[in-house]
Amino acid sequence: MAAVRVLVIHGPNLNLLGTREPDIYGHTTLADIDERLQKQAAQWGMELSHLQSNHEGRLIEALHEARGQVDWIILNPAAFTHYSYALRDAIAAVDIPTIEVHLSNVHQREAFRTQSVTAPVCVGQIAGFGAESYLLALQAIRMRTATLAAEAAGD
Amino acid sequence: MAAVRVLVIHGPNLNLLGTREPDIYGHTTLADIDERLQKQAAQWGMELSHLQSNHEGRLIEALHEARGQVDWIILNPAAFTHYSYALRDAIAAVDIPTIEVHLSNVHQREAFRTQSVTAPVCVGQIAGFGAESYLLALQAIRMRTATLAAEAAGD
Amino acid sequence: MAAVRVLVIHGPNLNLLGTREPDIYGHTTLADIDERLQKQAAQWGMELSHLQSNHEGRLIEALHEARGQVDWIILNPAAFTHYSYALRDAIAAVDIPTIEVHLSNVHQREAFRTQSVTAPVCVGQIAGFGAESYLLALQAIRMRTATLAAEAAGD
Amino acid sequence: MAAVRVLVIHGPNLNLLGTREPDIYGHTTLADIDERLQKQAAQWGMELSHLQSNHEGRLIEALHEARGQVDWIILNPAAFTHYSYALRDAIAAVDIPTIEVHLSNVHQREAFRTQSVTAPVCVGQIAGFGAESYLLALQAIRMRTATLAAEAAGD
Amino acid sequence: MAAVRVLVIHGPNLNLLGTREPDIYGHTTLADIDERLQKQAAQWGMELSHLQSNHEGRLIEALHEARGQVDWIILNPAAFTHYSYALRDAIAAVDIPTIEVHLSNVHQREAFRTQSVTAPVCVGQIAGFGAESYLLALQAIRMRTATLAAEAAGD
Amino acid sequence: MAAVRVLVIHGPNLNLLGTREPDIYGHTTLADIDERLQKQAAQWGMELSHLQSNHEGRLIEALHEARGQVDWIILNPAAFTHYSYALRDAIAAVDIPTIEVHLSNVHQREAFRTQSVTAPVCVGQIAGFGAESYLLALQAIRMRTATLAAEAAGD
Amino acid sequence: MAAVRVLVIHGPNLNLLGTREPDIYGHTTLADIDERLQKQAAQWGMELSHLQSNHEGRLIEALHEARGQVDWIILNPAAFTHYSYALRDAIAAVDIPTIEVHLSNVHQREAFRTQSVTAPVCVGQIAGFGAESYLLALQAIRMRTATLAAEAAGD
Amino acid sequence: MAAVRVLVIHGPNLNLLGTREPDIYGHTTLADIDERLQKQAAQWGMELSHLQSNHEGRLIEALHEARGQVDWIILNPAAFTHYSYALRDAIAAVDIPTIEVHLSNVHQREAFRTQSVTAPVCVGQIAGFGAESYLLALQAIRMRTATLAAEAAGD
Amino acid sequence: MAAVRVLVIHGPNLNLLGTREPDIYGHTTLADIDERLQKQAAQWGMELSHLQSNHEGRLIEALHEARGQVDWIILNPAAFTHYSYALRDAIAAVDIPTIEVHLSNVHQREAFRTQSVTAPVCVGQIAGFGAESYLLALQAIRMRTATLAAEAAGD
Amino acid sequence: MAAVRVLVIHGPNLNLLGTREPDIYGHTTLADIDERLQKQAAQWGMELSHLQSNHEGRLIEALHEARGQVDWIILNPAAFTHYSYALRDAIAAVDIPTIEVHLSNVHQREAFRTQSVTAPVCVGQIAGFGAESYLLALQAIRMRTATLAAEAAGD
Amino acid sequence: MAAVRVLVIHGPNLNLLGTREPDIYGHTTLADIDERLQKQAAQWGMELSHLQSNHEGRLIEALHEARGQVDWIILNPAAFTHYSYALRDAIAAVDIPTIEVHLSNVHQREAFRTQSVTAPVCVGQIAGFGAESYLLALQAIRMRTATLAAEAAGD
Amino acid sequence: MAAVRVLVIHGPNLNLLGTREPDIYGHTTLADIDERLQKQAAQWGMELSHLQSNHEGRLIEALHEARGQVDWIILNPAAFTHYSYALRDAIAAVDIPTIEVHLSNVHQREAFRTQSVTAPVCVGQIAGFGAESYLLALQAIRMRTATLAAEAAGD
Repeated sequence: MAAVRVLVIHGPNLNLLGTREPDIYGHTTLADIDERLQKQAAQWGMELSHLQSNHEGRLIEALHEARGQVDWIILNPAAFTHYSYALRDAIAAVDIPTIEVHLSNVHQREAFRTQSVTAPVCVGQIAGFGAESYLLALQAIRMRTATLAAEAAGD
Repeated sequence: MAAVRVLVIHGPNLNLLGTREPDIYGHTTLADIDERLQKQAAQWGMELSHLQSNHEGRLIEALHEARGQVDWIILNPAAFTHYSYALRDAIAAVDIPTIEVHLSNVHQREAFRTQSVTAPVCVGQIAGFGAESYLLALQAIRMRTATLAAEAAGD
Repeated sequence: MAAVRVLVIHGPNLNLLGTREPDIYGHTTLADIDERLQKQAAQWGMELSHLQSNHEGRLIEALHEARGQVDWIILNPAAFTHYSYALRDAIAAVDIPTIEVHLSNVHQREAFRTQSVTAPVCVGQIAGFGAESYLLALQAIRMRTATLAAEAAGD
Repeated sequence: MAAVRVLVIHGPNLNLLGTREPDIYGHTTLADIDERLQKQAAQWGMELSHLQSNHEGRLIEALHEARGQVDWIILNPAAFTHYSYALRDAIAAVDIPTIEVHLSNVHQREAFRTQSVTAPVCVGQIAGFGAESYLLALQAIRMRTATLAAEAAGD
Repeated sequence: MAAVRVLVIHGPNLNLLGTREPDIYGHTTLADIDERLQKQAAQWGMELSHLQSNHEGRLIEALHEARGQVDWIILNPAAFTHYSYALRDAIAAVDIPTIEVHLSNVHQREAFRTQSVTAPVCVGQIAGFGAESYLLALQAIRMRTATLAAEAAGD
Repeated sequence: MAAVRVLVIHGPNLNLLGTREPDIYGHTTLADIDERLQKQAAQWGMELSHLQSNHEGRLIEALHEARGQVDWIILNPAAFTHYSYALRDAIAAVDIPTIEVHLSNVHQREAFRTQSVTAPVCVGQIAGFGAESYLLALQAIRMRTATLAAEAAGD
Repeated sequence: MAAVRVLVIHGPNLNLLGTREPDIYGHTTLADIDERLQKQAAQWGMELSHLQSNHEGRLIEALHEARGQVDWIILNPAAFTHYSYALRDAIAAVDIPTIEVHLSNVHQREAFRTQSVTAPVCVGQIAGFGAESYLLALQAIRMRTATLAAEAAGD
Repeated sequence: MAAVRVLVIHGPNLNLLGTREPDIYGHTTLADIDERLQKQAAQWGMELSHLQSNHEGRLIEALHEARGQVDWIILNPAAFTHYSYALRDAIAAVDIPTIEVHLSNVHQREAFRTQSVTAPVCVGQIAGFGAESYLLALQAIRMRTATLAAEAAGD
Repeated sequence: MAAVRVLVIHGPNLNLLGTREPDIYGHTTLADIDERLQKQAAQWGMELSHLQSNHEGRLIEALHEARGQVDWIILNPAAFTHYSYALRDAIAAVDIPTIEVHLSNVHQREAFRTQSVTAPVCVGQIAGFGAESYLLALQAIRMRTATLAAEAAGD
Repeated sequence: MAAVRVLVIHGPNLNLLGTREPDIYGHTTLADIDERLQKQAAQWGMELSHLQSNHEGRLIEALHEARGQVDWIILNPAAFTHYSYALRDAIAAVDIPTIEVHLSNVHQREAFRTQSVTAPVCVGQIAGFGAESYLLALQAIRMRTATLAAEAAGD
Repeated sequence: MAAVRVLVIHGPNLNLLGTREPDIYGHTTLADIDERLQKQAAQWGMELSHLQSNHEGRLIEALHEARGQVDWIILNPAAFTHYSYALRDAIAAVDIPTIEVHLSNVHQREAFRTQSVTAPVCVGQIAGFGAESYLLALQAIRMRTATLAAEAAGD
Repeated sequence: MAAVRVLVIHGPNLNLLGTREPDIYGHTTLADIDERLQKQAAQWGMELSHLQSNHEGRLIEALHEARGQVDWIILNPAAFTHYSYALRDAIAAVDIPTIEVHLSNVHQREAFRTQSVTAPVCVGQIAGFGAESYLLALQAIRMRTATLAAEAAGD
């Protein structure tokens, strides 16, 4: 069976992770997260690539380019979660199962953060576990894949 | 009389046309649309250029650059329709008559798609005719130009 | 192939066109518009009939009577656009493809004019081109018919 | 004891019943309903008359004319339910007990259908039973009349 | 100087006046009001005509027909006050100074009665004085006319 | 043909019926209603059981237990109508046709009573006829059953 | 019969009348209005006093002091119309029939001006007739008094 | 190191899982989920207990009883998510880290399901992965515990 | 004169008092409060009983059972304050004067805590005095009783 | 120990108490209340002063002047409760513990009365007990003082 | 050239500055601010007067009296910013260019502080710089005056 | 003391300044503003750099790059003010004191322009002074720096 290919997309300002508002986001850097994800993916025989951009247009194009190249997307849209209908349309258009993740529990912060315009076109949402939100998303993909493989193999 | 110059601007995700959610948007590609528009424009003696971008900033700059270069703009702002006040400001700033077009009937879809922040600074809006929404916009420009020419020729 | 039959329906106060608020609606009268549409329809081998009423009930019944008689409807619901759920139900009930047109760009006027209760049951909407909004709707019908005919002829 | 007189009023578009959106409204025609109501009323010794109009003004006047002529009104205001304050005022003005009926369960459809401006001035509301919504209203009248008669006959 | 011509328009359900909800509207009939207005107008050398309709379309057409025939309109839009954008458009279109009157103090009743869609296109509004709301409107016209006449006569 | 089995469920505070706010709810007790329903059901060859609870959880479980045991449910959710999404989920989950009934006309009372969170997952709603709201629901079931039987028997 | 006593109360900024925003409020000064009212009152045998204040507390106390001293109040609450619940409570508390007047048609201006917190506790409202709004209020009082006198003189 | 103790709490209607609306919730039963969780917990050396109730009060008390007995709670509040402020207060009061899970992606369903009154007092939220939402929560606990243990072992 | 009988009802989560979020609710336990109330009641010759439940249904039934047994109710509905229309209906139904109390100043906390659905059917509300909110309610009952007794003893 | 000093502040229109809307506010005058408070305060060894004003500015200054002069404030802001952010700022600025009182149960009246802009900066709120709302506030101060004194005397 | 005359108006509670909530407003007193402004104005050859009031009416009259006396107004409306339409009308009426200043950044505080009813009739707004907000306003006036003088001196 | 380093950031469409909607924004170009700022900064011994972009992502990165490079930021977010939560997050993340400036008085224009999503994370806001809004921001920085220097020099 071919390796599951996963693309991790980090939205705006996440490149500052570890330095930005540490009381909300902690001290882990984005490189730390990517490395930890990479290691875990390797262990599970998955192929993982990642990307960060502060440009909505770049994120949209990363989604476009993923078509035919990856099986799953883990997406942290950061602030775009709350208004980027363009990003939402991109997720819906490329039709690759996408998991929305958030480092912080968005429900404990400003009111505007409780609205997600991207979640309705994603498979699911994981929020509040810091860097581990990403790892849980990877785990979710692994579970789903195992289930589908079992179904395909069995009757 | 100088040829009427028209710029067609396609917003985010429209490059996927023909592959994206075909039950909503059909199978025609953006290249098909541009070609069809080009042919029609040529037939009518108009000069037509076109551009697609997934970057709000690029669309804004395309509008800026159009000043003094084109007589009309046909704009499908796609998802930016619903929140890009920056695009709205650009349309108002460049002061070139602009027609807003949509492939689908935005009134039949999610509630957020019924609000247009760009329409108030456009000449008019054409929505729901698929690729032909663009052709109707071109036709609208032709009619307006004819009317103005007739008025100029008259007394 | 049988001629395409089109019914043009003008809503309340449109009989005053050309005299009413000319800075918003221009000097063309409704008769001018009907004549221009008639001429264009004839040129394209279409059969066109038209009707104006200030009575919501009459407009509803015109829609009812159109069943089996016409292939397309061009409808300017005027102020009924914003509250006549009865007209909306009539459009949905008769199941004839309907194009909503507006003379002015409704998005540039009072806030209540941006809400259309009829648009969700129409094919599409054309607004802001004065009398030419109707002509563009006729053009839209022509394009659609040609496409369908081509599809029927080819396989 | 004099026969109970009932007026059944059908609002806009109900004349299309049986042909209009059958997945929502079924195949029974308005004539079928009226006949079935007539038969049931006759069986119960009631006098029943009925009327349909697509004109708000006509419905208002039907209510006015009913004063002194009927004891109960069964009213399906159709789309007027959601905005006709004029119809509401008419019901309140004529002061004849009125039962609001709907063929479909209005709570399962578009959001605007859950608001009734007429219900607050009616006795009660029956919705969701197709043609039988009317028969249940007739039954409600019969029960009420029997109760009142019993009370009158008692001490 | 030519006599001032005034048209009094009564909206839906006002024909029931004197019999309808007397605790809100009193015992005076519409004929009483028209007679009282007629008498007053005669005394002041005005020409007064009047009209009642329960049909929105008829009221719209009465406004249309008034063009060139009357100098002022006194309008009680009754329930149409709260939703008839078509009536509003008619008032704006005919461009005859119009005074909105209400028998009851609309601010003391249901919440929906505090919103007027017609008032923004009228000269002013008089509410809460029963039949005398109309007489005050007539008086307002008289004052305005006197002022204008004085100004015309002056320097 | 097997007897139709009906479960009547009364929500919170309905056990006080006949003693509670008699100007709104009348003097009939819940036992009176159940007896009257029982008698009517017997006459029509139906099996009827009933239950009242002030506990949301108990009502939910009564719905669960009804699966496979009853053919129809008559439900007066009382105050739970306005907020118990758990009850709503239970109705949707058990998939037994359910009729929502209310003693009073909920549209004539406090604003919060006009919103029903349970009605969208019910067959229909009957409100405003006091104890007879329940009898009308029973009648509705009888009509539906007869219709279905006729359809099954006929062609 | 004793003379009718009327108190005219002018709210904040009305002392600037005639100099303030003349395109909205005209050139008449407050002294002009008071004089004109005084003259008219005298002619009709009424006793008229007047008062202007920019202090909410002063207006409240003017209302308090009016108890037992005047029969009617004509009140232009100016900007207090839109938020002074204290003024509203004062009107309700003193229980003297009060007529709310406005110089301009409040429905044609900023959205906040369409809400009146004082109107619900007044007899009625007159708006849009400039200085003549006050005179119409005086006329309204005269009519009401005449009616009551006639009734008293009757049986 | 003592075994991590986890309590899994299932809210209303979840006992029907596997039979209820399978197109939304799938065919897995609650027993299947609990067993799968149990097995996984055993493998990881955790102690896991579970509980389902349709009673808000019972769920609240389960939370109360958990104090001092468990280290983490996995909670699927089901419909209570959207209105049970009492459950929210219980979570806040017992001060045990709690993870909110949902089987379905609540953002893809009715509007009322996007609001969570419990999430603001939880650690995080996992939604849209069916039964695996629970397993991911267990995984989240395992990660957190490992991190804390590592930190404790560190300095 | 018979002793005044008072029932104190504590809503959900109040059993945790003294341990739950002490920075908001303090260290006093519910037993402390009940004891203090009991002592005070005894001193004043009142009979006091009390009850706590986390079950909405139980609280409703406690109210039902109180009919004929107690003269006053002191109710802290806790979180039910904000959504339990069922509890509201119970208070209205049993018709025993009820005082709503809150430990904390609900106006200083989350927005949802400022809305009380139960207060409109209570005599009054006391909030923000910790355990003393209950004692003040008891004091309020004592004052009211004394006043009534004085009135009864008087003429 | 020094006597506790309490300032009682009565807001707009309260000077009319006993004469104003007695069905809502009763027949007790403000002097009666002040006397009763004075007597009670004396009995408890407190120093009490009081003040009423219809001027928002005066109330603000009374709060300012209280700094260093009083230990507690009992404030009935009357209608200012609902909009005077200036009064709110004054309460917050002077930093003297303040208890908000209302004669009537504000939750049973107009919708606007349920919003308090002052309560968030007060210690607590007592509403619905007529004149006794003030006495309960005095009692609350006494309890608090005793508690603090006990604590001070303690360790 | 005549000296520029500036009036500085401080709204309610600003007299407490330096003592009130120092964490929000700092330790500078109003006298300090006035002195600093005075000094700066003198240096720039401006005439500066100042005034503080807690009375809305007084502030309105200060604005009235400024007509013809000053060239610019610097206004800190404090809490009146959020509701005093009377103050707004005064600013509009006197037609002297006015700059709105705030000590704190109103956007970082309670939601109600983000709405300004006075800003739409001012030249501009400066907020968040403590006492220096006023000095910046003075600087703004100086720049404007210089610009105008330069323009006047030019051609 | 090291020179204060200031970065001026201009948002979308500001590159068109001087040509775009001159009735709102005037004839000064962005180069004029930058030059004027540069000159003033030089005079005050500050180091000033500037940047304009129509790309949200570019502006975000400019903020990121400023960390450690500048002491203050002057930001005109233009249309991004009203929706760019990504820009807001960037401002909060880089933690450099930022002043929001606007050329026009945003409170005098379309409703959407009164909401700023960036202001809550800025130091303050200056709006309505044209190009001088920037100069005032520079002045604000200078004052703050002087104050801090004075304080540092002090103790």
